[in-house]
Amino acid sequence: MNKIETLSPETETLPVTQIIANFAVAPIDRDAAADAAQIARLSLLDWIAVAVAGRDEPVAKIVRDLVGGDGGTPEASVIGHDANLPARAAALSNGATSHALDYDDTHFIYLGHPTVAVMPAALALAEKLGSTGPAFLDAALVGLETACRIGEWLGRGHYQHGFHQTATSGSFGAAAAASRLLGLDAERTCHALGIAATKASGLKSQFGTMGKPYHAGLAAANGVEAALLAKAGIVSRPDGLECEQGFSLTHAGEQDNTSLAMGELGRKYVFTEVQHKFHACCHGTHAPVEALISARDDHGVSPADIESVELTVNPRFLRVCNIEQPATGLEAKFSFRLTAAMALSGYDTSALATFSAENCHEPSLVALRDKVSVVTDSGLSESVAQIRIDRRSNEAVVIRHDICDPMPVAVREAKVRAKAAALLGQDRAERCWLRTQDLGTAGEPVNLRELAEL
Amino acid sequence: MNKIETLSPETETLPVTQIIANFAVAPIDRDAAADAAQIARLSLLDWIAVAVAGRDEPVAKIVRDLVGGDGGTPEASVIGHDANLPARAAALSNGATSHALDYDDTHFIYLGHPTVAVMPAALALAEKLGSTGPAFLDAALVGLETACRIGEWLGRGHYQHGFHQTATSGSFGAAAAASRLLGLDAERTCHALGIAATKASGLKSQFGTMGKPYHAGLAAANGVEAALLAKAGIVSRPDGLECEQGFSLTHAGEQDNTSLAMGELGRKYVFTEVQHKFHACCHGTHAPVEALISARDDHGVSPADIESVELTVNPRFLRVCNIEQPATGLEAKFSFRLTAAMALSGYDTSALATFSAENCHEPSLVALRDKVSVVTDSGLSESVAQIRIDRRSNEAVVIRHDICDPMPVAVREAKVRAKAAALLGQDRAERCWLRTQDLGTAGEPVNLRELAEL
Repeated sequence: MNKIETLSPETETLPVTQIIANFAVAPIDRDAAADAAQIARLSLLDWIAVAVAGRDEPVAKIVRDLVGGDGGTPEASVIGHDANLPARAAALSNGATSHALDYDDTHFIYLGHPTVAVMPAALALAEKLGSTGPAFLDAALVGLETACRIGEWLGRGHYQHGFHQTATSGSFGAAAAASRLLGLDAERTCHALGIAATKASGLKSQFGTMGKPYHAGLAAANGVEAALLAKAGIVSRPDGLECEQGFSLTHAGEQDNTSLAMGELGRKYVFTEVQHKFHACCHGTHAPVEALISARDDHGVSPADIESVELTVNPRFLRVCNIEQPATGLEAKFSFRLTAAMALSGYDTSALATFSAENCHEPSLVALRDKVSVVTDSGLSESVAQIRIDRRSNEAVVIRHDICDPMPVAVREAKVRAKAAALLGQDRAERCWLRTQDLGTAGEPVNLRELAEL
Repeated sequence: MNKIETLSPETETLPVTQIIANFAVAPIDRDAAADAAQIARLSLLDWIAVAVAGRDEPVAKIVRDLVGGDGGTPEASVIGHDANLPARAAALSNGATSHALDYDDTHFIYLGHPTVAVMPAALALAEKLGSTGPAFLDAALVGLETACRIGEWLGRGHYQHGFHQTATSGSFGAAAAASRLLGLDAERTCHALGIAATKASGLKSQFGTMGKPYHAGLAAANGVEAALLAKAGIVSRPDGLECEQGFSLTHAGEQDNTSLAMGELGRKYVFTEVQHKFHACCHGTHAPVEALISARDDHGVSPADIESVELTVNPRFLRVCNIEQPATGLEAKFSFRLTAAMALSGYDTSALATFSAENCHEPSLVALRDKVSVVTDSGLSESVAQIRIDRRSNEAVVIRHDICDPMPVAVREAKVRAKAAALLGQDRAERCWLRTQDLGTAGEPVNLRELAEL
């Protein structure tokens, strides 16, 4: 297999394992990757913020105690742990920790969480190897893009069948990032992907349990292990994704969509469509919350003036986040009505502490909550909500918001930095931000402990 | 969930995760388990022999170097490695090492290799915990039976779809063994099985690569990790095997066969039907080899007297082990004709060294090989072969052999001990045998290094 700079139309007819391997080892087209690289740095900051904020979640502690008890060669930083641990262990722990709050970024084509699978793998292995910032960022970018592309390639059928793409596609993304950091050639990278193909797992039935965040750790650790084994010469199936009884055919992958899912790989980065979460509640509540914040900030809607609020959403969400009278912080995150009252009242919905039992019973919030009704429209896509606010003093306000609408990088940057400030504190968040910016040019080895002030 | 001594007919209608958890934690019916326990000890001796013999195989070295590089708390013995390592790491390495030669035992209902998945997990965790011989043996037995039962429950469809049951069902067996050693109750064991459900993986497309032996290590390590996480309080799906989008429904498991596969669990041990490999070649060659050894030993057939040999086998094997003129040791293992010549000529087919390039070209073997023809009969089951030897001096000899025919435990014991002697040397094999016998009553902590003289 030859290294190629970007895929030509001809190479898009190659088997998908080979396409990904070629992409993983090739030089990066800097112009094509410019936005994606900047967004990847934002995702790194976002990842640090949600991981640090999630470090005391039960699943984070349990997984960290497991790998901490095993101990071993101090290769890589572990969030919430004083001692460094082997890269595989750090990837497992940091992956689970960073997905513990489910507050990390989401990609709706991938249909999964790219950063929690790929970033912990790339960071841990970069620390083990002493990789520089630019090498780490390139590997992370390649891994993030791979996770998204493989996710699209496996498709909705894979997800509907019951597989959690964060874990499955995420393993391939992590393996691609790790292979690049290790300097594998395309052939060895195929073997790393082949090991990932036989190791990738993760079931959607674990949603709502600690199994879900654990999946992110599994994906990250799978990628590190697969690439290290490939480096050491393991012989796997170098066509493990697409071969007979390979990953796709055994895991309900869509068939015959290689050219669609792999089109313009290296020339176009679908990772740029990643969505950061700007509210510490269920992603299903975000479209109405954004519309309501706009009503408040752009249309001057004040709680005292509100007669009634109607939220129109896709009917799928009625079974997801429509707890009408939440009583706990967790329930608050899954309540259209209470999150609406919070947004209209100016509560900081990016802060974890906002979602408290106390706020569930706060009289002014409860009064406003009870003016909110939820209706459905199956014609609305899942990323869209429409709100209508009837007011005493003025005409009604109607706003429609689509959380998948393109967002200028500068707007996204401001929002991610504000979220990081809410989670890490203003000063620490800004220092982290500056360090992630510096990574692109710094010649020193990457160090998560310094980067995140662990 | 209550601990129950054996399953009553009523409990066989419980969900399968709960059935297995109840079995894993319950007292063992000693009468019902007597033969299985003795065979498990034979499997332990067999496992030690094939693992020690396989310790320098490339995949064994690669996986061992990975975990050796990680290092960590010295909890458990690692075959081929001077230092002890964490139990998870030891399970991974010892699992891969013991399946490297593909010379370990096979269970044709499970449709997989129970001992290489379960024994490394039980041994590693027993060493970590300081468990005694009887506790270890009970856990291993429970794990072996679980692997076989879950394998039957998932069924042929799961295997045909492309999953390697050694890895998938093996993970559940290893988790059951590990849960028992950790003293989990049935509810916590369900969570361990739930973690195994989202972690179990392994594709048949890896057959013929190092991925296959690696699978055994994955299963063993999965079981240890799942049980340790459950002990620490992780919340998974306690119905992870059978739930909507659980393991079976996502992995092409057979449906509606719970009462069949789980029938008489605890009162009957299907593990007793495990087949040990007594020839260091493809399992498909074993039935004709056994028949030919009988022709030689019981009917006095001598090579010089042979005019022709006809082997009749299931047609499936033509694509598996019918290399007509093998040239390498590996090819020799997949050659009906050459293994037939070896068996008739009195070569020790239990010894690894017999399968050499040199023997592929040995003139007397080649001459006899060329008198052997292979025909097929789709009416023969896969475990059966018929041989016909036409002789110059006497009437033809026709023998049919079924490797699944019941074998008295005493006969099996003699054969396993002879195999262990071929692999470990006579004296070491006998000492290992005596130690595995003593395990059933010894009150000291289990120690693989002492047991196997590593």
